[in-house]
Formats: sequence, C-alpha cells, structure tokens
Amino acid sequence: MDQLLAAVDLGSNSFRLSIGRVVQHDGGAQIYAIDRLKESVRLAAGLGPDKMLSEEAMDRAITVLKRFGERIAGFHPNRVRAVATNTFRVARNAAQLLPRAEAALGFPIEVISGQEEARLIFSGVANELPPSPNKRLVIDIGGGSTEVIIGRGYEPLRMASLYMGCVSYGQAFFPDGRITAARMEQAQLAARREFETISWPYRKTGWQEAYGSSGTAKGLYAVLTEGGMSSKGITQQGLEKLRAKLIRDGRVIIDELPGLKPDRAPVLAPGLAIMLAAFDELHIKLMRPGDGALRVGVLYDLLGRDSDHDKREQTVHQFIKRYHIDMLQADRVRKLALHFFEQLDLPEEERPDLARALNWAADLHETGLSIAHADYHKHSAYILGHADMPGFSNDGQALLAWLALGHQGKLNKLRAHESTHAQWLTLLCLRLAVLLSRRREDLEKPPLAIAADARTIRIRVNGSWLAEHPLSAYTLRGEVAQWNKAGFEMELQEA
Amino acid sequence: MDQLLAAVDLGSNSFRLSIGRVVQHDGGAQIYAIDRLKESVRLAAGLGPDKMLSEEAMDRAITVLKRFGERIAGFHPNRVRAVATNTFRVARNAAQLLPRAEAALGFPIEVISGQEEARLIFSGVANELPPSPNKRLVIDIGGGSTEVIIGRGYEPLRMASLYMGCVSYGQAFFPDGRITAARMEQAQLAARREFETISWPYRKTGWQEAYGSSGTAKGLYAVLTEGGMSSKGITQQGLEKLRAKLIRDGRVIIDELPGLKPDRAPVLAPGLAIMLAAFDELHIKLMRPGDGALRVGVLYDLLGRDSDHDKREQTVHQFIKRYHIDMLQADRVRKLALHFFEQLDLPEEERPDLARALNWAADLHETGLSIAHADYHKHSAYILGHADMPGFSNDGQALLAWLALGHQGKLNKLRAHESTHAQWLTLLCLRLAVLLSRRREDLEKPPLAIAADARTIRIRVNGSWLAEHPLSAYTLRGEVAQWNKAGFEMELQEA
Repeated sequence: MDQLLAAVDLGSNSFRLSIGRVVQHDGGAQIYAIDRLKESVRLAAGLGPDKMLSEEAMDRAITVLKRFGERIAGFHPNRVRAVATNTFRVARNAAQLLPRAEAALGFPIEVISGQEEARLIFSGVANELPPSPNKRLVIDIGGGSTEVIIGRGYEPLRMASLYMGCVSYGQAFFPDGRITAARMEQAQLAARREFETISWPYRKTGWQEAYGSSGTAKGLYAVLTEGGMSSKGITQQGLEKLRAKLIRDGRVIIDELPGLKPDRAPVLAPGLAIMLAAFDELHIKLMRPGDGALRVGVLYDLLGRDSDHDKREQTVHQFIKRYHIDMLQADRVRKLALHFFEQLDLPEEERPDLARALNWAADLHETGLSIAHADYHKHSAYILGHADMPGFSNDGQALLAWLALGHQGKLNKLRAHESTHAQWLTLLCLRLAVLLSRRREDLEKPPLAIAADARTIRIRVNGSWLAEHPLSAYTLRGEVAQWNKAGFEMELQEA
Repeated sequence: MDQLLAAVDLGSNSFRLSIGRVVQHDGGAQIYAIDRLKESVRLAAGLGPDKMLSEEAMDRAITVLKRFGERIAGFHPNRVRAVATNTFRVARNAAQLLPRAEAALGFPIEVISGQEEARLIFSGVANELPPSPNKRLVIDIGGGSTEVIIGRGYEPLRMASLYMGCVSYGQAFFPDGRITAARMEQAQLAARREFETISWPYRKTGWQEAYGSSGTAKGLYAVLTEGGMSSKGITQQGLEKLRAKLIRDGRVIIDELPGLKPDRAPVLAPGLAIMLAAFDELHIKLMRPGDGALRVGVLYDLLGRDSDHDKREQTVHQFIKRYHIDMLQADRVRKLALHFFEQLDLPEEERPDLARALNWAADLHETGLSIAHADYHKHSAYILGHADMPGFSNDGQALLAWLALGHQGKLNKLRAHESTHAQWLTLLCLRLAVLLSRRREDLEKPPLAIAADARTIRIRVNGSWLAEHPLSAYTLRGEVAQWNKAGFEMELQEA
C-alpha cells in the first residue's frame, strides 16, 4: 500500500479520483494509474449571480466526496492530495463548504490558484506524453477556468489561467440550451477577448504541438472524428462544421452526434465556442487530445514532496534570488525562530506544516524591501499574497503572507485573519527571532526561552542579559505589552 | 524676476520661505538665497491623540502662509514649490487644511513622503557644502520626522525617514516640560529603537563626515559651543554634559543656556534625546551643523524641472529597468494615449501635469506584471502607490497609481478616489490606448477620435474598421457600457 498515491481533483464540472502506483526505475519514478473515478458534479452550475453556491450543488459535492473518501480511507495523509479549483476560488461561501467537504473526504482539501492549476496540468500532460524536444501548447478548458500553458519537457515556459469555462459560459450564453448564431458569436467574442490578453506572448514563444487536456477537448475530438467532421484530430474546419450543425439544429441532438457522452451535451456548445476562440487567437492548426491533466500532475507533485523535489522549495529559492534577499539575515532569523519553535508543545497534525512555513517565512519576510523600506512587512505580505508561487496552495501562500505581515509592528492588524493558536505561536517565534536580529549581528546564544500552554505564554529571559541590554529589554517589554493587548496572556520572567 | 525661485517648507515645527536667485556659470547653475523667512508654527503640537489637527494649529498655519503668500505674490507658478512634510502626512484632517493653506499661500502645496523629504534634504545640504570625495552622513531631526541620509557628492546612497521628531517626542515624553532621568531614558530608548532599524546598513555603508541640518542640530551646536560644553561641534561628551545639566535642573533654564533661542526651549530635551540615540546607534563621533536642508533642496529641484534634469524622469527610467517594462508596448500605448489626449479640451491649469502623468503612466502601467499576470493592474497600482519614487509628491504618485489601477477592468473600483473630470478623461485616453494595443501590434492609424465636453463624451469610430474588427467592436462597446454604468454619458458614433 505504501507505494500508492491518491489525487482528488474537485473541478468545476467533474470531481475525479486517481490512485497511482509508484514504480522506481533508473533512479526516476513513474506513476501508473491503478484506479480512476470520475463524477459529473457541475459545481459551477450551482453558482448564483451573487457567487453563492446553492445548497443542492454543495450536497452533490458532498455525496461524491463521501464515495471517494470510502475508496481512500486508510491512506496515510502524506499520500493523498486533494485540490479544488475555480469554483472554490470564486464562491463566496466556499469557506462554508470546505470543512464539510474535508469531513466527507476524510482528508484536507487545498484550494489552488489558476497558475498552480496550470502548472499541475502541464506536469500531468507532460508526464503522460512521450519525451520530445518540441515545445508543447496545452489548453485545458475546465468548467470555470481555462488553463493555457506552453512548455518543453516537464518545464512550463508560459502559464495562464483565464476566467472562463464551459459550465460558466453555458450559463452566460446558452442559459436554456438553445443555440443560435448570435449566441455563438457572443460567446466566441467573449472568449477571444480572454485569449487576446495572452495571444501575443504565446505566439512569440511559439510551439510545435498542441494538446487539449480536458473533457471538453476529448469530447470535441470524439464528436469530430466519430462524426466524420475531421479525420485526424481537432481542426478549425472540423470545429466550424460542428458549429454550423449546432446552429442549424438549434440544440444538441445527442443521437446525431456519435462520440458524445450524454453528460457532456449541456457543455458542448460553450466548450466549442471557447475552443474556436482559442484556434482563432492562437492560430492553432491541429490539436490532439492529451491525457493526464490535473490529477496526474497532482500525483507527480505528491511524489516530489517525498523526495528533494518539493516544488515549493524551488519557488522559495527563486524568490530569494528575484527579491535579492539578505540570506545572512534570513539564516540568522531562521535559526532563532526554529530554536523557539522547538520549545513549543504543538498539535502533531499542525507541527510539520508550521515548521516548514516558519522556515520559508524566515527566507521571505523581507521580500517587501524591494518595494520600499517603510512598512516593508506590508509589502512582503502583498507580494507573497499575490505572486504566483508554484507548488503552494492558496492557504499555504496565505499563511506565508500572514507571517510576513505579522513579523513586526502591531498585532491588531492581524485580527481579521482567522488563525489557530499554533499559528499565533509560530508567529511569535518569528517575531522574537526578528526582534533579536534587528542589528543583523549573530547572538552568542539565545537569551530567552518560550513555554506556552493553551492559556499562557511565558518568556523566560536571562536577567543579567536584560540588564546589559536596555534597548532589547525595552523592546521585549513592548512586545509583551502588544500580545497582552491582542488578548493573549503573556508574561516576561527574569531568571 | 524670472531668475528668482521660491521654496516653501511647511515643516512640523517651523514654516520656512526661501527665495533664491539663479546664477548660471560654467554650464552649471547656482542658487543664492536672497530672502528667507522662518516662523515657528509648531504644527505637530496641534496634533491630538486622534491624529486630528486642532483649529488653533490650523489657524496658526494659515496666518503664517498668508504672510508668505504676500511675499511671493506675482511669482509664476513654475517658479514656486511648496512642500509639506510629516504632520501633513499623518494628520487625518490634512485634506481639510490643504485647500485653505493653498488659498492662503496662493500656490499649490505638495505633501511629500519621508523618502522624498530625505532626498531633498540631502540635495540641500550637499549643494551648500564644499565639494568633497567623502561620504557624508546627514541627520535632520524635524518636528515630526527624522531623516537620515548617507551620500557622496549630490548623490544619496542611503535614505530613511524615521517616525519621530522633537515636537512629537516632546509631547510623548516631556508633556509638561519637566525633565527627569527616567523620562530622558525612555525617550532615548524609543529613539534608539527607531535608529536600530537602519543602523546596520548605514554603518556598513559608512561615512567620513556627519552633519546635522535641522534647527535641533543647530540649536544643540549653539548651546554646546557657547556654553563651553564642547569646543568644536556636537560631540557625545558635550551631549552627555547637557543631558546631566537638564536632568539636574529638572527643566530648561534659558538664562543658563547661552546660544539657545527661546522658541527652541520646549524642544531642546526631546531633540537632545533623539540626537543622543543617533550618536549611540550610529557610532557618531563628531557632528557639524549643515546649512541648506529641505528648502534649499526644493530650490535646486525646481531648477532641475526647467531643464532636462527632472528627477521624476530619472525615477521613471529606473522603474522601467527595475521592473523589466516592455518598452515597445509602452511606446505604443503612449503614442495612442497622447494622440487622444490632444483631442481633448482640458483646463489649461491641469493640462501640462496631466500630459506628463499620462506619459509616465504609459511607461509604468505594466509594472505589476512583475508580481503576477492576474490582476496586474492592481499590482501596478500597489507598487506605484507604495514604492519610493524620488521627485514625486504624494499626490503625483497617487495619480500615477490611480491611472495604473484604472487602465483596465472595471471602473467602479475607482469610485472612492476623488478625481477631477480632466483626470477621468486622461484615464479614458489611457484605457482606449491599452484596449487598442492589446495585441501588441502597431496600428496603421488610430481608428477612433474623442470629443468631450463637461457632460458628454463622444467616441467617433470608423464604421468599416469596426465591421472588419468584430473583437475590437465588442470590446469598445463593452468599454462604453462601463463608462455609462459609472455615471458618465458616453456615446459611440460610427462615421
């Protein structure tokens, strides 16, 4: 069982579960799918104009997740990764659904950004295709978002996530399922506008092969080839033929479209509109269906986290370079922060993630200096909250941004964020480390120790050190006052 | 009269007016002061704990500005620059005072950031000192903020503005004027904490000469040398002697302190505490008084704006490099935006500033791509709103950030900002230019023209071009809908 990994993809149209077996060979590892479940949930269709998910849609999601949960019950949490995409990103009541969904599945669910989705999709497709020196374009038309990637080998060169999908466009342009030339035209124009924002850099980068990785692409491929509208893949000509037929018929007639699965009928027209727009704007000649996609990318990422290929580490290293981080200071802060962290008695399920986050926060808390020195902690939080950070989930990134925001200055700015007690204690470790490192000089040994229980935090500090360092004493007392003002019980004990 | 320039410095302690005569020689220009006015306003003392300026303090300011206004009445607006510093930065009702102050002075007043203040102070001091290859440290302890700069020649190498000043520290630590050892200690510790944040990089950069440029430094210099506490400048030993005397006396006894001007008596103790902290944290041995300061820097900056040395141009060029701006696209957008701008009938007093802002916005609107592609206009606005931009006033920077924020996407996000009709029309020019340049290809010729009066905006567009470009037509119609939704009357006319 321990060579098995499971990926759950909570998409806007379908939910998918993949179980893969890891096979090591020649120093590399390959994942072979041993089980796959797919359920059409059409979650995005449950999104009202107020961006609230309906009860019915949430119930559909929970029912499916319970089934998935049963299949992977007993997996070690390190061997499962569940990711949620666009509908979870935009639904205003996602925070309500998430805990219910996690309970049903039995594992934590990460909401990932569009960029992260794009990265994982490319990894999934690239891992399923034969090796090639060619640049490859991958388009994944999902239910609520469309990812467009160019990459070579396993390396994405350009990634974008556009805010349109076959479910959301179905609701917007074909609300009753009726298909007219005018509706099709409006949908295509809206989609072209989205592709237009990226067409220039993508065409400049160029590619030799194009793949469509989602249900939309596979569905179109089946309809075009089995219906005789195209012989060798998805082509502009084939798409135009299908378009003419749908407009002529005024609706999707399943019996006349061999290859079309019934659950794809409602999203055929909007998916076609988006695909036509992609062909127009990116000048695609021929698109082949690509296997893999998000769930396979998630499996390979999960594999990397066990080894020294954690994508998040690579991202942090890139940021260190891009933002010219002073690594002497980062290391100084890290050493002290982890020293304090080890003194804490934290829940075992939170400890490893928090230790990693503290490590990365030590690296990145000064990112904002690239914008300005004044209030740089706020600029750090802005960058870490908004930048594309491959490998990080939205929550993982938000935690880093939160630690950066809170690493100095007043604590009351943090109130709005809902944080666990363990997260606050982690922040305390970072703050104390930064406070003691303000002179950017190494300390001989840490002059203080922390002890915390659910109610009280005690900071024990060497009395003679305190007397010799009036400025640090002043600052430490101010720190303790801050925490007490923020509703914690903190004591400074001289020993 | 046309070789005269005037600078007004609305400081937190004093307001100053300097009139200088420009003398050209050897291709360079020198400014000789021909008139100076200084009035102690102690504006920062009128700032309540709620950061609201009292009526009395505002009246004091208006009275002084009327006097200044009388002296410079008749100056061309291009030859006058009035800058306001920390109290205007932090007062919550500054927006109320500013129009009254501008009416009293008869000229616009720019609120500048601490970094900009630091830059101008160093320029002022450097221009008054003899040339030297040495690195120079300049400390300017103002009423509400303290600027610390290291530079060589006229070039600042490090700049910081710390949030403490002799007026605000007087209120915080010596509210009734009584001086005790404990109060002095608290004030010094608080000030050291501020200096501590910069002491490491400053000491690493190093310097050979230290200057104090504000009334605090000059006052301390006079008190120390005339009172026999120091023979050659401000020294640690001299400062300690003064500290001991003030604590012994329990207050400032003017008669026993030769060299002390009566209006500096209330800020002597807090100024001394800040200066002692600077000596401690930066390891200063000897400080000399430096002439010049903010008002002189403002005069030299004003001189540069007439020539090709506009500091703002240099800043924009630096940003173009730092953020890897695609200049082909910036030039494309600029050309179109200025083409539309020229068609507008705008108030003459706003036109030159808006043309400049539009030019710079064309350069910098894509700055945010350095953070992420998604919502990059918001990231551009964040960077341009928060970065140090030498030469720009706060308002000038805010206008750039506003243009960047509004250059694409919905208009309703801009509502909160109070903008003039001319600013909105400028934004329209930028939006249309960006919209037509989305493909990053040059247009043969602009397919549309703008005409606007106070009520209606008409966009005339070539009908056959519209028919040939369905995507642009779609986008343009969406743009018109946006503006009408935002409360403007906009029409699209095909011609």
